[in-house]
Amino acid sequence: MSGNTFGTLFAVTNFGESHGPAIGCVIDGCPPGMALSEADIQADLDRRRPGTSKFVTQRNEPDAVEILSGVYEGKTTGTPIALLIRNTDQRSKDYGNILQTFRPGHADYTYWQKFGIRDPRGGGRSSARLTAPTVAAGAVAKKWLKAKFGTTFHACMAQIGDVVIPFESWEHVPNNPFFAPVADVSALETFMNELRKSGDSCGARLRVVAQNMPVGLGQPLYDKLDADIAYAMMGLNAVKGVEIGAGFASVSDRGSTHGDSLTPGGFQGNKSGGVLGGISTGQDLDVSIAIKPTSSILIPRDSIDVSGAPTEVITKGRHDPCVGIRAAPIMEALLALVVMDHALLHRAQCGDVHVDTPDIAAANRA
Amino acid sequence: MSGNTFGTLFAVTNFGESHGPAIGCVIDGCPPGMALSEADIQADLDRRRPGTSKFVTQRNEPDAVEILSGVYEGKTTGTPIALLIRNTDQRSKDYGNILQTFRPGHADYTYWQKFGIRDPRGGGRSSARLTAPTVAAGAVAKKWLKAKFGTTFHACMAQIGDVVIPFESWEHVPNNPFFAPVADVSALETFMNELRKSGDSCGARLRVVAQNMPVGLGQPLYDKLDADIAYAMMGLNAVKGVEIGAGFASVSDRGSTHGDSLTPGGFQGNKSGGVLGGISTGQDLDVSIAIKPTSSILIPRDSIDVSGAPTEVITKGRHDPCVGIRAAPIMEALLALVVMDHALLHRAQCGDVHVDTPDIAAANRA
Amino acid sequence: MSGNTFGTLFAVTNFGESHGPAIGCVIDGCPPGMALSEADIQADLDRRRPGTSKFVTQRNEPDAVEILSGVYEGKTTGTPIALLIRNTDQRSKDYGNILQTFRPGHADYTYWQKFGIRDPRGGGRSSARLTAPTVAAGAVAKKWLKAKFGTTFHACMAQIGDVVIPFESWEHVPNNPFFAPVADVSALETFMNELRKSGDSCGARLRVVAQNMPVGLGQPLYDKLDADIAYAMMGLNAVKGVEIGAGFASVSDRGSTHGDSLTPGGFQGNKSGGVLGGISTGQDLDVSIAIKPTSSILIPRDSIDVSGAPTEVITKGRHDPCVGIRAAPIMEALLALVVMDHALLHRAQCGDVHVDTPDIAAANRA
Amino acid sequence: MSGNTFGTLFAVTNFGESHGPAIGCVIDGCPPGMALSEADIQADLDRRRPGTSKFVTQRNEPDAVEILSGVYEGKTTGTPIALLIRNTDQRSKDYGNILQTFRPGHADYTYWQKFGIRDPRGGGRSSARLTAPTVAAGAVAKKWLKAKFGTTFHACMAQIGDVVIPFESWEHVPNNPFFAPVADVSALETFMNELRKSGDSCGARLRVVAQNMPVGLGQPLYDKLDADIAYAMMGLNAVKGVEIGAGFASVSDRGSTHGDSLTPGGFQGNKSGGVLGGISTGQDLDVSIAIKPTSSILIPRDSIDVSGAPTEVITKGRHDPCVGIRAAPIMEALLALVVMDHALLHRAQCGDVHVDTPDIAAANRA
Repeated sequence: MSGNTFGTLFAVTNFGESHGPAIGCVIDGCPPGMALSEADIQADLDRRRPGTSKFVTQRNEPDAVEILSGVYEGKTTGTPIALLIRNTDQRSKDYGNILQTFRPGHADYTYWQKFGIRDPRGGGRSSARLTAPTVAAGAVAKKWLKAKFGTTFHACMAQIGDVVIPFESWEHVPNNPFFAPVADVSALETFMNELRKSGDSCGARLRVVAQNMPVGLGQPLYDKLDADIAYAMMGLNAVKGVEIGAGFASVSDRGSTHGDSLTPGGFQGNKSGGVLGGISTGQDLDVSIAIKPTSSILIPRDSIDVSGAPTEVITKGRHDPCVGIRAAPIMEALLALVVMDHALLHRAQCGDVHVDTPDIAAANRA
Repeated sequence: MSGNTFGTLFAVTNFGESHGPAIGCVIDGCPPGMALSEADIQADLDRRRPGTSKFVTQRNEPDAVEILSGVYEGKTTGTPIALLIRNTDQRSKDYGNILQTFRPGHADYTYWQKFGIRDPRGGGRSSARLTAPTVAAGAVAKKWLKAKFGTTFHACMAQIGDVVIPFESWEHVPNNPFFAPVADVSALETFMNELRKSGDSCGARLRVVAQNMPVGLGQPLYDKLDADIAYAMMGLNAVKGVEIGAGFASVSDRGSTHGDSLTPGGFQGNKSGGVLGGISTGQDLDVSIAIKPTSSILIPRDSIDVSGAPTEVITKGRHDPCVGIRAAPIMEALLALVVMDHALLHRAQCGDVHVDTPDIAAANRA
Repeated sequence: MSGNTFGTLFAVTNFGESHGPAIGCVIDGCPPGMALSEADIQADLDRRRPGTSKFVTQRNEPDAVEILSGVYEGKTTGTPIALLIRNTDQRSKDYGNILQTFRPGHADYTYWQKFGIRDPRGGGRSSARLTAPTVAAGAVAKKWLKAKFGTTFHACMAQIGDVVIPFESWEHVPNNPFFAPVADVSALETFMNELRKSGDSCGARLRVVAQNMPVGLGQPLYDKLDADIAYAMMGLNAVKGVEIGAGFASVSDRGSTHGDSLTPGGFQGNKSGGVLGGISTGQDLDVSIAIKPTSSILIPRDSIDVSGAPTEVITKGRHDPCVGIRAAPIMEALLALVVMDHALLHRAQCGDVHVDTPDIAAANRA
Repeated sequence: MSGNTFGTLFAVTNFGESHGPAIGCVIDGCPPGMALSEADIQADLDRRRPGTSKFVTQRNEPDAVEILSGVYEGKTTGTPIALLIRNTDQRSKDYGNILQTFRPGHADYTYWQKFGIRDPRGGGRSSARLTAPTVAAGAVAKKWLKAKFGTTFHACMAQIGDVVIPFESWEHVPNNPFFAPVADVSALETFMNELRKSGDSCGARLRVVAQNMPVGLGQPLYDKLDADIAYAMMGLNAVKGVEIGAGFASVSDRGSTHGDSLTPGGFQGNKSGGVLGGISTGQDLDVSIAIKPTSSILIPRDSIDVSGAPTEVITKGRHDPCVGIRAAPIMEALLALVVMDHALLHRAQCGDVHVDTPDIAAANRA
């Protein structure tokens, strides 16, 4: 309600600031009886962690998660799961020089206008660092969905700046620092090295897919599955666009070719991206996002200071030249949280959740 | 919670089916003391109404709204405002032939899978007809926001099928059946006439803008203003993509040119679309959507029937060949509902809502 | 959120004023596939209806309910069920004389302070008439709970004014106008006749019981089953106290006799009222309420007018001398709504709902 | 939604188990700019703390609170305030002997039935220890309400077991271990010493009052101020009854004497307990609760074990013989949380919150 809780039945309340004592979240609504340990969560946190290559921020955070509650003798109890991550490498002095000015394209202006208070420590709460608790919560949702329905989540880079990345295979994603689904990332390395030297930043396009999806998830009229996916993705830092399935390519398409034909063996295409009328079809969910260039750059920009006078801003400190590079695990987490919440909601109203494409008989069960 | 309520503090609960007795909504949370009559609402409903040109469905619905509660002697009382629209022209027989099959690209398959029950009357609840109560509620929000802050909402068509429509002026929008911001719509007429003759349908791209926006609206971390806008827009029937500000063009942009510079006179650009860090900047909100082609077409498509056997589907009845044509007033309503909810939420937490760009002094008020 | 919605997964949004055009509600979240018609709802509305005996208000309202949505061919579809009750006998002139004054003990003072607007028509939204939509929604919940678990709800009068009513049998309740569980109600008739002649009003104590309750319903920590029951009951007009199980008698009790012993055959007592730690035990829920005397009486009271000057108030018009008399069906509805919501919530998190006392094996199922 | 969050605009999400690593909460929605430090919170925690007299559990917990987020340079920032309390004295071995049985009157039976998992460590999440985070959050609400409106909260003991305690003065409350509003507590000491020796436990009756209340808080229809108060109080461990104002004494009262008369100088009585029609009158809120005897006692009780076989239960370990003794600060916190939430909600819808009794002119402001 007050903005820092994601989901309703699997509700994740996020807290913390980039350079405060700690960040974390409380997960309320996790089903009881699931095996869960810190290791289950740490793996995804490590994929999102800063400092793992020269193409991302050099801040060194172990992001070690501690489970404070909700797990007893290795199993979830059905009570809130509190997750705590202590901040360790908060060099706030790096930000001292920006306290009196506003970075073009950055949230420091709007936070100041909204709250009348400014927390300059690494962007405070507007920092991308606050996606870590989201990733941690997403790991819990992923585990449950995989155990229950076999549902899995995979994200990858589709474009960095001008460099379009063809999709070769999910297998390549963990093998390069860009989460790129290609074997050869030399073009990306060249591009990013030049970008870093120029002191500039760039945007990115990413894609996330959920496989083995239950059918029937999503609520009419407003809380559609795709509406909640768009909410989740657009709420991720720096995102300016969201597409599901064919996305903006739908505009110039025709009805005679757009709708995915059905056959006894399944759908003949996935322009829908796995959602029709706001409800999952059982096909793969397929979602893309556009991420804008980071606003914290070494190139001077025109701006104003807190008294309203004109000034020039250069942002030193440690920043991602392409914030999209670390976004893949976050997208997976966000999509998993949306699916998890809808799976529980569907179970509440309709009593079961099933996976089948297209299983007509299933509908007679309800 | 169960999917049919939009917003939290200005909460709109929508009910009804396309061909049931009535559709409508209950608005809970409207501030007291605002003058309100059916006429305030009817104007927007008439803009969305079917049957107003040959380019939209020929169903003839007056969409006359009745205020059932929440208004006394012409003023809102602070209690729920129930709005009722009786359905009058529900020719259900048109749909008899589709009861046993699934239209490719249509929600009838997923509703069947979810609920185990099928309401074939005009798509039942999945019909775009259910946007009428949203438009009605949006009219109430628009009136309050205009009176309080001078905020206004304008939507227009940007592309129909392959025909890109340049932006000339908002003044043209009410003067043609396409909500196009151009003086000459002959190219659109030609395109749509050919489309109708072919029995096919097409997609569309639309844009909505909010002017005189209050600054500081939006909640970190998850309930960001842009996240809620994306939720609202993606939840509109047939939408497959949402962009805010520069949208997908951000991907190939650089930080040195992307972030909108600040000067004592205001922002020097609006690539942000009026939102930074999920909070409104006071600039215009600028949002675009992609709408897919209608799935109900006269051209035969491969499909299956409810027993799972292969079949061919042709949809007769009265349908919009480009459902985007009537989407402009709906987008305005949705954007107004999001802004309204965030204005009340901001007032709850921060005590005031103000409009100024960029008014540095204002931030010291809080 | 804005105060007029009851429940979260089985969410009832109530609208209307006592003397406006109509009252009603929208039920969001009802499971699909349940047979439902107006007759299922009308029976409980008729039990609550005014004008049925000389001991209640003589306002004559048929309270005929119309189902506007959510039901197709006699079955719920899983989409919102809108229920409409037109007001027919709203003699607003009766209230003209009270527009400028405040009745001691009545909500007209606080509504005026809160909203700055006054709807004098029968108390507007503060009228007990607004319990009719609650009763209607409760009838839907009752039907589902009975079909699913065999759960039933019974309320009765326990005391009117000074007259304590012993519990003889539920069978007597429908046979007298007081919902009294006794065969002989002559003492009550005498008391009420004298009360009416005096122009005064009195309080009442009522009790409601749910039988065949599922075990395990209720959420720790805050949304306990008993917490939500207390919320529901205290929210009923004129209620000033709520007890569960032993209630205030617990204060002078000892632990050695208070806790209900367990045996292989079940609990040996029900001082808990069917709830331990906020979660249902599977025993009967047992809840009592205290209702204050109606504030609209023929005896003059000291008060002030809207300018703040002293005045005297007498309330003519048609009022219940003991508003508790019609409260029994409302209590049943409220308790059913609470149980329904928790049953769905439990199903979401824990996957099943079961009924057994005490069935230890059951706990191993989860 | 999932049960562990209190409030909507000032939302407190509680986590932890009695004998896990830590307990705490996240407060979302606190207005920005308020001075806040650990010391503001610690004072109330110390009042609730165990081990402070021989009449309460001897568990020794410092209950030292750490603010993890939401405060920068001593002021709230408007972002979530996470509060952490490490458990230090969790002697789990004390509970080993009860793992296989169910205490009559205790939540261990219902938790087992609900979740299929049992956390025997000090009652796990059902422990009264989980009221500590509630008290911590309440301290934040209290501070804001006092600064903004001068509203203050006071609770006291009204009865322990059979010993009724007359109200003498709030000043006595901090001077004795019973929170009793009397100068001489020797009778209570005698009673409690005998109770402890007997190995038994007893119930209690407490009262809480809010002074300098804003007028107009509370939402019709369901989310009435008194409804939410009842929810809050009944949700407190071991509470079996809640009264507002005259409470159950209303049953035998008459309308001619019950409603509090109004005069230009204010109300002539407070039988309403400060609420009419669910909305605050501006008078003192006045609430009473009944607390049942603790179920963990040294006297043997009949019960069953987890296989369903009959057994006898004696609870050793450290327990409160009268859990009501430490309830006073918790009641204050709960009432403050309810008032805080409604103050923000009122500000959202009506734009201001004011304090005056009865200030007729105020209503014209809206």
